Amino acid sequence: MRVAVVLYDQFTALDAVGPYEVLSRVPGAEVTFVAAQAGPVRTDTDRLALVADAALDELPDPDVILIPGGPGQLALMEDEPLLSWLRRADASSTWTTSVCTGSLLLAAAGLLDGRRATTHWLLLDDLERHGATAVRERVVVDGKVVTAAGVSAGIDMALTLAAELAGADVAQTAQLLLEYDPKPPFDAGSPATAPDALVAALREASRQLLAASDVQRA
Amino acid sequence: MRVAVVLYDQFTALDAVGPYEVLSRVPGAEVTFVAAQAGPVRTDTDRLALVADAALDELPDPDVILIPGGPGQLALMEDEPLLSWLRRADASSTWTTSVCTGSLLLAAAGLLDGRRATTHWLLLDDLERHGATAVRERVVVDGKVVTAAGVSAGIDMALTLAAELAGADVAQTAQLLLEYDPKPPFDAGSPATAPDALVAALREASRQLLAASDVQRA
Repeated sequence: MRVAVVLYDQFTALDAVGPYEVLSRVPGAEVTFVAAQAGPVRTDTDRLALVADAALDELPDPDVILIPGGPGQLALMEDEPLLSWLRRADASSTWTTSVCTGSLLLAAAGLLDGRRATTHWLLLDDLERHGATAVRERVVVDGKVVTAAGVSAGIDMALTLAAELAGADVAQTAQLLLEYDPKPPFDAGSPATAPDALVAALREASRQLLAASDVQRA
Repeated sequence: MRVAVVLYDQFTALDAVGPYEVLSRVPGAEVTFVAAQAGPVRTDTDRLALVADAALDELPDPDVILIPGGPGQLALMEDEPLLSWLRRADASSTWTTSVCTGSLLLAAAGLLDGRRATTHWLLLDDLERHGATAVRERVVVDGKVVTAAGVSAGIDMALTLAAELAGADVAQTAQLLLEYDPKPPFDAGSPATAPDALVAALREASRQLLAASDVQRA
């Protein structure tokens, strides 16, 4: 079972690394990090690069596709090489999955038309505009397409997926190995529970980022 | 504020990437991945490499030290270059931190003598044998030393640390951006809640790994 984790410039590292830790512990799963070209790919903070071991062309038909999110997604919404790869890979995949704004790339490839899907809480309206039925849930399964909410939700998504791929014991063993028994010191991980002022500040920053991106495209 | 994340062959990626996502969002924090030599460092699965942007020697005095865990820790318990770097860096650090079995390397450097500390649930006895007072908590703060339990606990540790470094608003903003509102599909992240058979299987696998490592050293 070949799992392709798709990297691109300015992706968010945890979107990819969270699910990788779970899925690489599923017996028989062979996880490969892929990108337009093999080699180091910089993340959104520019403080870290992850190495893609293969080019997209070298792995055209993985069994599981996983595409992370990150600000770099904005520049790829019309990137034909990536979107074509996603369409072709999805045509034969068993599971097509995303974390955070990775679902916007699946939507841009036309793979979420009419499907229930999710993304980072800041981008749910954007996902809806791109043809999906956007729902505010942590992990959304619609047929073979599994989408996760923002960044850290990829861990929950991968545990859900691991159970589908190999059973609940395998998923729970991965969870126990990763000691994923979360105890955040604050209850601020969702706009429903975070202080209103922090939610408003992030909404404004996101609005400005999207507006700047629209200006660049125009 | 310079944050050094120390990589080594066969570290566990999420141990490093979880905290990095939080700490790189603290205003003024400059996160650098360091290793014995700059360049790609392979993780414990051999399916992924992260790039260290600097050699340890280039960053002898970070304000914050973060050392991840992973099976590669076993081979470094007597590695003088690394242990010397840790001792020297700790002499001037504001915070010295670890995730998972990274605390065993801090202990090997003599930095946890008489301190309360934690590690992966499978290695608590081992930590005690190396001079620390091992406690089964998710995040342990003892003076300037902050240690986290296994792998994913690094995210909780970094949120605790971010609040110390820059205040609760900054920590909560990072949590909200990362949408860290965990909802694992199973309650198996701790030996207290996971099915007994899975806990026993991992204890046996760990015992064999440590025994093999003792044979190698002998």
